[in-house]
Amino acid sequence: MKSYMEMTKEELLQEKAALEAEYCKIKSQGLALDMSRGKPSAEQLDLSMGLLDAVDSKTVAVSENGTDVRNYGVLDGIPEAKRLIAEMINVKPENVIVYGNSSLNIMYDQIARAELFGICGNTPWSKLETVKFLCPVPGYDRHFAITEEFGIEMINIPMTEEGPDMDLVEQYVNSDPAVKGIWCVPKYSNPQGVVYSDETVRRFAALKPAATDFRIFWDNAYAVHHIYESDQAEILNILDECEKAGNPDMVFEFCSTSKVSFPGAGIAAIASSGANISDIKKRLGMQTIGHDKINQLRHVAYFKNMDGIKAHMMKQAAVIRPKFEMLDEMLTAEIASRGIGNWMKPKGGYFISFEAMDGCAKAIVDKCKEAGVVLTGAGSPFPYKKDPKDSVLRIAPTYPSLEELTEAAKVFVTVVRLVSVEKLLKS
Amino acid sequence: MKSYMEMTKEELLQEKAALEAEYCKIKSQGLALDMSRGKPSAEQLDLSMGLLDAVDSKTVAVSENGTDVRNYGVLDGIPEAKRLIAEMINVKPENVIVYGNSSLNIMYDQIARAELFGICGNTPWSKLETVKFLCPVPGYDRHFAITEEFGIEMINIPMTEEGPDMDLVEQYVNSDPAVKGIWCVPKYSNPQGVVYSDETVRRFAALKPAATDFRIFWDNAYAVHHIYESDQAEILNILDECEKAGNPDMVFEFCSTSKVSFPGAGIAAIASSGANISDIKKRLGMQTIGHDKINQLRHVAYFKNMDGIKAHMMKQAAVIRPKFEMLDEMLTAEIASRGIGNWMKPKGGYFISFEAMDGCAKAIVDKCKEAGVVLTGAGSPFPYKKDPKDSVLRIAPTYPSLEELTEAAKVFVTVVRLVSVEKLLKS
Repeated sequence: MKSYMEMTKEELLQEKAALEAEYCKIKSQGLALDMSRGKPSAEQLDLSMGLLDAVDSKTVAVSENGTDVRNYGVLDGIPEAKRLIAEMINVKPENVIVYGNSSLNIMYDQIARAELFGICGNTPWSKLETVKFLCPVPGYDRHFAITEEFGIEMINIPMTEEGPDMDLVEQYVNSDPAVKGIWCVPKYSNPQGVVYSDETVRRFAALKPAATDFRIFWDNAYAVHHIYESDQAEILNILDECEKAGNPDMVFEFCSTSKVSFPGAGIAAIASSGANISDIKKRLGMQTIGHDKINQLRHVAYFKNMDGIKAHMMKQAAVIRPKFEMLDEMLTAEIASRGIGNWMKPKGGYFISFEAMDGCAKAIVDKCKEAGVVLTGAGSPFPYKKDPKDSVLRIAPTYPSLEELTEAAKVFVTVVRLVSVEKLLKS
Repeated sequence: MKSYMEMTKEELLQEKAALEAEYCKIKSQGLALDMSRGKPSAEQLDLSMGLLDAVDSKTVAVSENGTDVRNYGVLDGIPEAKRLIAEMINVKPENVIVYGNSSLNIMYDQIARAELFGICGNTPWSKLETVKFLCPVPGYDRHFAITEEFGIEMINIPMTEEGPDMDLVEQYVNSDPAVKGIWCVPKYSNPQGVVYSDETVRRFAALKPAATDFRIFWDNAYAVHHIYESDQAEILNILDECEKAGNPDMVFEFCSTSKVSFPGAGIAAIASSGANISDIKKRLGMQTIGHDKINQLRHVAYFKNMDGIKAHMMKQAAVIRPKFEMLDEMLTAEIASRGIGNWMKPKGGYFISFEAMDGCAKAIVDKCKEAGVVLTGAGSPFPYKKDPKDSVLRIAPTYPSLEELTEAAKVFVTVVRLVSVEKLLKS
């Protein structure tokens, strides 16, 4: 395929005419497709239905330490659930608090409590003139929505193939006491699928924050969400590395089984140092008597241990892998060959992050929508929804069927080509 | 039985000697009993085991509006769960948000958000010099713990047999703009079992608060928690009354199925005006994607409707009624007859509130503990754990078996008599 960059104006005009005709044809089909939702498909959820039988009326609903899981109590989770979560993210059970269904809610609470009461005896953030968060971009829109909600100033940090630009991170964190946190998705990052390198993790652990209450918000959302049987990413354990580096309290790590079992009916958790855990529990005890221990027991009864989770996630991988591969192949054939877009081929997680030519993202979203294909809004992987180059698009392949996704992807590549040609003709 | 007030000093000394001998005997038994826990007994929980079969792997896990309850989404609850909750507390489904497992957490969140962001556009409470809450006493310790956590100044309001002293409530609420809320348990109040009279509810609805963001925190925790088949209390619907009185936005009502199905694995909810509900949802959407919809569906599948809940609660009543009645009889025989204590005979809820002679509560708790019977700490039904008269004790009859409770009650009445005699001899 000839790169658009090498085309003459005349060739571009010809291409444009052909693409416009194609686009018209697509529009006339009245499609209604969606590549915007970072949700498992029904086929994936079907794989977890056995979870619903794991605890029933015949179950002795008692934790291994004798607690009746049907009654009140146990702020930090039953021991077997703490152990399951600990195995999943490779930490110690005593560093884990198991919550209810939403890790996002845990992250929100961590920030709300920092604002209201301060972290480990430090000044409440709400009493400070300015609080800043570093935001590796592109990133997860709901992270940025939380920090925006609290009026926290967000600073973009570009992502590299190894994780956030650590030179910049070090510069901000080590010099500015107003920088209180950074949002990280260290494994199969949302939306790019970047896996933080060992060096990146070690540089995080070795930070010398100007603020004593600086915390890394380490959202290990895709810890076990591989796409392939082999070729699975591993990242260094940030809690261990921070302890080794003399920064034991610097991390809040989050995870959940939302995309392992059921979104909304899974279990979520935080992992952190002993000092942070006891600081959290002191406040959390005012907030609730405890989370759903029957659902914790249900998850342990069903998955048993890390082997159970791994085997389950391979079944899910078999469902989503063809979708990721189809997209990668179509983008390679139709886009890469023409030099009008980049992406990383993810080995896990839930998204593909497509980088179009500068200034084209919004136009692509609009034109796709006009043709009946919904994409995540341009800008949404950035703080304040502002993509400085208007070039990044988040594609979510998991929810539609392979057939629908293929249809949608065909529209997408046609639109990307059309918008790119228009852009080139204008410049 | 002769009242202690009518006894001569000599008679009291004789009584004391006899009671001391009795107390010594009790101590030698090495008892380990507990009347402190406001928890259902295992026998009550056994009644709900069918809930665990209500959704299984064969269930079509789809809400009546077509939502796959296994997947992400639905901030305010599936329609059938909103309807079930609405029936339970007699409000409209559109005024309900169904949450996760903890109504306490909803109350905490309401206050946390008022502090951080303000209610319906009003100034965030954290920006105000002083925020005050009215606290009907005796009341629920965890309510007071939340307001204390936020540094909110708590003002005691005495309870009458009709609810809080409304003259005082009106005086504070209608004149002081720093008064932002009041904690209420309107039906079978914790710990007295008081049922707010219609006049009380109407006077609440007719308040003319000095603060536009004054809210009644209406914790309808025991809406369906009757002890008797007949003789069940009904209270006026506070949302309706407030609307009629021109104060539609003045109430946050809370409830849960914690003591209907399983504590910790039930569903909880808030009910409020349309304006409040949309104010809440705007913020809640930053906090979480949604609560556990499978558990919502499970509750609807099991209880079906209000008739199902009513029938289920009568089974629970049959378990707890003998415990309440035994206590009432023993207190009547051993305490009332001697003029050394008062209580109301509750028709629902989870507690009996015992009022000893002034200055005796702490001594009773201590002496019971020495004899192996744990009571809720003296002072705990009051803000800052300070009982001004040191006279109120909360007795929780539901968790122990009838046999254990009877044993514990015998110790209790002996200790109350002993402490009362000592008190009378000193004065």
